[in-house]
Amino acid sequence: MTIRTLVWGENVHEQTNKTVAELYPSGMHAAIADSLNRNDGIKADTAVLQDPEHGLTAERLAATDVLLWWGHAAHGEVSDAIAERVCEAVWSGMGMIFLHSAHFSKPFKRLMGTACNLTWREAGERERLWVTSANHPIAEGVGPMFELENEEMYGEPFGVPEPLETVFVSWFQGGEVFRSGLTYKRGAGNVFYFRPGHETYPTYHDANVQRVIANAVRWAHNPARRIADPTAAPNVPVDEAPEKITERGARLHNPGEDGFR
Amino acid sequence: MTIRTLVWGENVHEQTNKTVAELYPSGMHAAIADSLNRNDGIKADTAVLQDPEHGLTAERLAATDVLLWWGHAAHGEVSDAIAERVCEAVWSGMGMIFLHSAHFSKPFKRLMGTACNLTWREAGERERLWVTSANHPIAEGVGPMFELENEEMYGEPFGVPEPLETVFVSWFQGGEVFRSGLTYKRGAGNVFYFRPGHETYPTYHDANVQRVIANAVRWAHNPARRIADPTAAPNVPVDEAPEKITERGARLHNPGEDGFR
Amino acid sequence: MTIRTLVWGENVHEQTNKTVAELYPSGMHAAIADSLNRNDGIKADTAVLQDPEHGLTAERLAATDVLLWWGHAAHGEVSDAIAERVCEAVWSGMGMIFLHSAHFSKPFKRLMGTACNLTWREAGERERLWVTSANHPIAEGVGPMFELENEEMYGEPFGVPEPLETVFVSWFQGGEVFRSGLTYKRGAGNVFYFRPGHETYPTYHDANVQRVIANAVRWAHNPARRIADPTAAPNVPVDEAPEKITERGARLHNPGEDGFR
Amino acid sequence: MTIRTLVWGENVHEQTNKTVAELYPSGMHAAIADSLNRNDGIKADTAVLQDPEHGLTAERLAATDVLLWWGHAAHGEVSDAIAERVCEAVWSGMGMIFLHSAHFSKPFKRLMGTACNLTWREAGERERLWVTSANHPIAEGVGPMFELENEEMYGEPFGVPEPLETVFVSWFQGGEVFRSGLTYKRGAGNVFYFRPGHETYPTYHDANVQRVIANAVRWAHNPARRIADPTAAPNVPVDEAPEKITERGARLHNPGEDGFR
Repeated sequence: MTIRTLVWGENVHEQTNKTVAELYPSGMHAAIADSLNRNDGIKADTAVLQDPEHGLTAERLAATDVLLWWGHAAHGEVSDAIAERVCEAVWSGMGMIFLHSAHFSKPFKRLMGTACNLTWREAGERERLWVTSANHPIAEGVGPMFELENEEMYGEPFGVPEPLETVFVSWFQGGEVFRSGLTYKRGAGNVFYFRPGHETYPTYHDANVQRVIANAVRWAHNPARRIADPTAAPNVPVDEAPEKITERGARLHNPGEDGFR
Repeated sequence: MTIRTLVWGENVHEQTNKTVAELYPSGMHAAIADSLNRNDGIKADTAVLQDPEHGLTAERLAATDVLLWWGHAAHGEVSDAIAERVCEAVWSGMGMIFLHSAHFSKPFKRLMGTACNLTWREAGERERLWVTSANHPIAEGVGPMFELENEEMYGEPFGVPEPLETVFVSWFQGGEVFRSGLTYKRGAGNVFYFRPGHETYPTYHDANVQRVIANAVRWAHNPARRIADPTAAPNVPVDEAPEKITERGARLHNPGEDGFR
Repeated sequence: MTIRTLVWGENVHEQTNKTVAELYPSGMHAAIADSLNRNDGIKADTAVLQDPEHGLTAERLAATDVLLWWGHAAHGEVSDAIAERVCEAVWSGMGMIFLHSAHFSKPFKRLMGTACNLTWREAGERERLWVTSANHPIAEGVGPMFELENEEMYGEPFGVPEPLETVFVSWFQGGEVFRSGLTYKRGAGNVFYFRPGHETYPTYHDANVQRVIANAVRWAHNPARRIADPTAAPNVPVDEAPEKITERGARLHNPGEDGFR
Repeated sequence: MTIRTLVWGENVHEQTNKTVAELYPSGMHAAIADSLNRNDGIKADTAVLQDPEHGLTAERLAATDVLLWWGHAAHGEVSDAIAERVCEAVWSGMGMIFLHSAHFSKPFKRLMGTACNLTWREAGERERLWVTSANHPIAEGVGPMFELENEEMYGEPFGVPEPLETVFVSWFQGGEVFRSGLTYKRGAGNVFYFRPGHETYPTYHDANVQRVIANAVRWAHNPARRIADPTAAPNVPVDEAPEKITERGARLHNPGEDGFR
């Protein structure tokens, strides 16, 4: 079984910033997809903001098992309708991984229900990611910790709900900490946030980062058949109740009528 | 210390449905506020959909410790901007209680990050709410369970994230179950969902329901000073890092510049 | 890859109660193992209380990926040392599934940290298990709910910590509810509690129950290499700190000395 | 209402180590109790390992709203029966706060259900505790972070279950991180773990540490009447079922008989 993976990138700084273009000549999304494609059982493709419908048609989402999202400068250019479509795909069972500055992307804010804010500093300082959940499948193979010599700092408080599990916590040279690997479930979809990945550093060329992302793709994949209508709120007619009952009192709706939304 | 409480009602069926108007001649919001005002330490006021800005100006939210929300037929008439304002108030520390059909209200869906769907049946059947968290402050005084002789059924799966705590689970005469009391935290705000309250039954006149709602107001109240800007993502300049560091590598932003959103 | 599964049964009522012996002539553990062995990728064996060391030597636990536990009349006859050995195996990464009356077994109480109590009634009443987590892998293939025509009732409050996820909630004919499928993580081990299985009813011959148990075995399996010493608390010598530091102030221990326990 | 607080200390190093004796001439427990007694609404007393029954008789626990626990060198000298009595008090509703090396105390390991292990280093290095849950009542008044110039390092992975909420995460000068403020619920009791407090440093004289501990006492206090028998598993006779049912099938127990344990 192959996990159909789609790496979405906003693809802006790769076009406008010399440092980023040199680090990721085919784009960050392509670098991430290339590293995923070196794993058996994962088949990664890419889509970008500039594609029609941002490359995220209903058909393509239906054929995607796990979606990765990297965005930073152009969160506001993502269509509200497409962001909602992505969330519905998650609720129906698509796995989703948010990378670094995607903490402020529309789908992440929508799925978390919070402000998703943090403190930050661009100084190329050392980050050390500690595994806080021993033997978690997402941390497989990276040891008790790993280091990134140059990264942007993200600091607490991170404005997200309590996760299902905290997998990584980061130490920063400048004195801050950050919960940098967090798991969530939203509907039938598994969601993972992974902190590293500032575009002016070679983070997505790092072997440990690549390994965590591949692990996360496998973890996020829910093999169950996708839920056909993940927002349906079906009426159960009185005569189809599991136990026999007789209707009593006043009601608002006629039999079979849709509920209010 | 008095908890400044605001009960928001959409106030539609009270005007259009004879059964509802007879049960709640001053409106459901007024009935709920009246019962809250019989508790020492709670001062409850009301607001309705039809008020200017739905009665939810920034000033009023800033002066509200706990907001209760009942809506059903007119979720779509609530302004997106005001729904977002309500969510920001929660993130800043305002407590919030969602009642019954408010599971499909804009603020609840926004705060949960999920579809918030369920199954339902209007048959006036018996509901029995069991306390699943012994001695939880929200369940204080109602015993191990209490019954409502006539209620609408809501059935699982309830499309919400795993709660911090499950306080009540409902048994329905027709054979379904529902997690009917759930706690969440969103930013600095405590959030409680409480299932009962279909408008064609006298649920908000029930002493146990009134007691749970008053308990929930006390539980949801966060006495800390509200966070001034709950969505801020401040830059920490290099020379203000807690530990002395030297900037390295390329950066996107000039010192003091705002981040992307 | 085959999941090495061990079904542990206390094997008491099968020997002393005619009804149980007729339902499960080879023992409940054997019936459960037989049904598991009809699944590709699962190889199930059995062990019983009466075996030397209850069949749970260190070597056998080390070679077990997932352990299932059924006990009722003889919880007190399980050796404390072996119960602790089982818990350490869980912390090292062994999956574990507790069935029905195992809620009062020594390993379950030890892993939960709570009283694990509940209310109960033996009346052969109808139980209906509703899936509360849509598309959860443990609920794969059983539909939105399934029924057991005759079961013992277990009622809330169930004295356990909040789970990672609530997968099933049961409706009982007599009016109670119960959170009957709960997931936990303890160290590197995945833990699942599954309610049905009173010994005087044919529950473990039910196709849905068998399916859930097989699903749970797959879910609980952590393929990572087991943690060698899951209770170790290693000292990090000053000169092996990730960042260079100089020792300051008074200390209790000499370099390399073990900590207190 | 006054919160009846009891600070338990093992009181060993205060008697045997010159540094500790000079820092805490009346004992660490006394220093902590003294600082708590400077708060309105808290009345703190002390008990030590060397007292009869370690100062923790059933009567005294019944009259204690919140218990604090500090131990390090003598965990093994605490009676198993008294540790279990303490846990039962928590399940019945007593709040409990575990300080620093109490992570390896018998009651903490029993309540967590895990190994509670970590890595450590005694080097008097700098610790900086960041608030990860904005406006959490336990963090009231300490700002976004606070520093301790000399502390023992505790490093991840910390072998505990996922908490209800992560309130503090620590940064250490030597390069490690630690989740240093964690909330749990066990039965009706609120539990908080707070990391700082190595006995050779003046940590319990620090104003921020004192403030957090007083905040935690208020947070942990459950004002509900204590549960009389927190381990009871009562039978519900068939004729007392909430819904009328008729007994069917075979049963193990006679009416009114106790269940197995």
